[in-house]
Amino acid sequence: MADRLAHLRGSVDAALDGFLRPDAEIPPLILEAARYAVLGPGKRLRPILVLASGEAASGHSEGLMPAACAVEMIHAFSLVHDDLPALDDDSLRRGRPTVHVKFDEATAILAGDALLNLAFEILATQPGATGQEGARLRAIAAVARAVGLRGMIGGQVLDLEFEGKVGTREDLERIHRLKTGCLITASCVAGAILSGADDGAIAALERYGRALGLAFQITDDILDVTGSAEEIGKSPGKDAAAAKTTFPSLFGLEASRKMAAEQVDAALGAISNFGARSSALAEIARSIASRRS
Amino acid sequence: MADRLAHLRGSVDAALDGFLRPDAEIPPLILEAARYAVLGPGKRLRPILVLASGEAASGHSEGLMPAACAVEMIHAFSLVHDDLPALDDDSLRRGRPTVHVKFDEATAILAGDALLNLAFEILATQPGATGQEGARLRAIAAVARAVGLRGMIGGQVLDLEFEGKVGTREDLERIHRLKTGCLITASCVAGAILSGADDGAIAALERYGRALGLAFQITDDILDVTGSAEEIGKSPGKDAAAAKTTFPSLFGLEASRKMAAEQVDAALGAISNFGARSSALAEIARSIASRRS
Repeated sequence: MADRLAHLRGSVDAALDGFLRPDAEIPPLILEAARYAVLGPGKRLRPILVLASGEAASGHSEGLMPAACAVEMIHAFSLVHDDLPALDDDSLRRGRPTVHVKFDEATAILAGDALLNLAFEILATQPGATGQEGARLRAIAAVARAVGLRGMIGGQVLDLEFEGKVGTREDLERIHRLKTGCLITASCVAGAILSGADDGAIAALERYGRALGLAFQITDDILDVTGSAEEIGKSPGKDAAAAKTTFPSLFGLEASRKMAAEQVDAALGAISNFGARSSALAEIARSIASRRS
Repeated sequence: MADRLAHLRGSVDAALDGFLRPDAEIPPLILEAARYAVLGPGKRLRPILVLASGEAASGHSEGLMPAACAVEMIHAFSLVHDDLPALDDDSLRRGRPTVHVKFDEATAILAGDALLNLAFEILATQPGATGQEGARLRAIAAVARAVGLRGMIGGQVLDLEFEGKVGTREDLERIHRLKTGCLITASCVAGAILSGADDGAIAALERYGRALGLAFQITDDILDVTGSAEEIGKSPGKDAAAAKTTFPSLFGLEASRKMAAEQVDAALGAISNFGARSSALAEIARSIASRRS
């Protein structure tokens, strides 16, 4: 099964590469920056969730690869802008210089913009598994809501405001839900919608995505304490240095591990009715609990 | 007729305000920055083109206001990011401090991101005049293509690379077509598509948009030479100070004025078959020739 996730990751990488081919109409430097941002080492969690959610809903993931690539591009866009000097000012990401360090700030800003926009172009032009126009519009709307002021971008704003201030569990979970959880959840929802899932199945996959997203973020916070730069591909200890409120800083490592495990269980519970079709989603949830990077 | 364009502008402003209302879920500062970017003084050329193109195609502009607001949000996004210190480093826009000066760089970057994303959310969720899902997908695709690496963002990249270098008329027209022309053209095309126009009408409005966009940009270059800061709402003489290649720097003022007039004529020619339905589009084209801001 780990082989299967690795195989999906390889298919996603090949498809992403196909959407970002050199072209006489595209200025070469910006394309190089966009490719650098998207095609570097990565877990491809969100695109795999699109594919695996489609499989849970319909038994297969055919036709979902464009949407899978779109959510990964949006994820890459958010990282590129989040790393900028005016925001988190990160110089290392996935073990490599961040885009504005490797290229320059203007290129990083515009490459991020281009990736966000390309995601919507792909969602609007590439048919989903069902090919139904209404489903494609609903999927675009779900993704756009997850990215916007009530989602990821709103979470980035709150995260900047929050830095250095002690908060409550509610504050912390809200930021994580917005900043990371919304796009993870939207990946599951979009995969389900584009596969023709009914409302009950979409709601179940939404619950799965929400629990998975929170589990993912709690383990991220834990890894910032316990991981090495080599393992996590970015500077560890950054949260503590910034006096950032995290799950470990609020609850300690042991309680945080327990909370992550509870969310993994909740994710598995949400997909219990899908049977064997949800085996990939179950494997993803279990891999969160044991993640080292 | 000037009254009618002013009336349309007022309706657009009211609708834009409605899409950016305070809300407990949205961090107040980012919303304030987004409102500042979008709701400041502006010509509202692109949204009015959506409405007027729909009217030319179908005789009315009902149901097109959400799409009109979406293209204005994309225009505002592009200005906010273009003004950033890492790009054009402009401190004055439409007579007011630019967003990163009034707020800060992080807020400007994220407000721009949010506006681009909100535009697609609106296009995906708000029905067009025809309400046909296929037309809405086509309109989203047309707008996304106009914004992307083969459009506006590609033009911004080329413009940064170009600065200070002498170029040919072909280079100059290419940059303007991408940076300004594509979104102006897409506004016409989206209005036509969402109004149920046939392919011939869409192509005519595309030709109109392309000529209008070029006329608009040539007059922009002329105003940078001849206008006052008060009139044009930004620092004049900036192009010359940056040794930027412009229409006046390549051809002189008189020839540039003639070229702008030719493009206005081409725009009027493209819509000659629409009759009285295209009176607003004709008025817009004629207003370009006499623009002072």
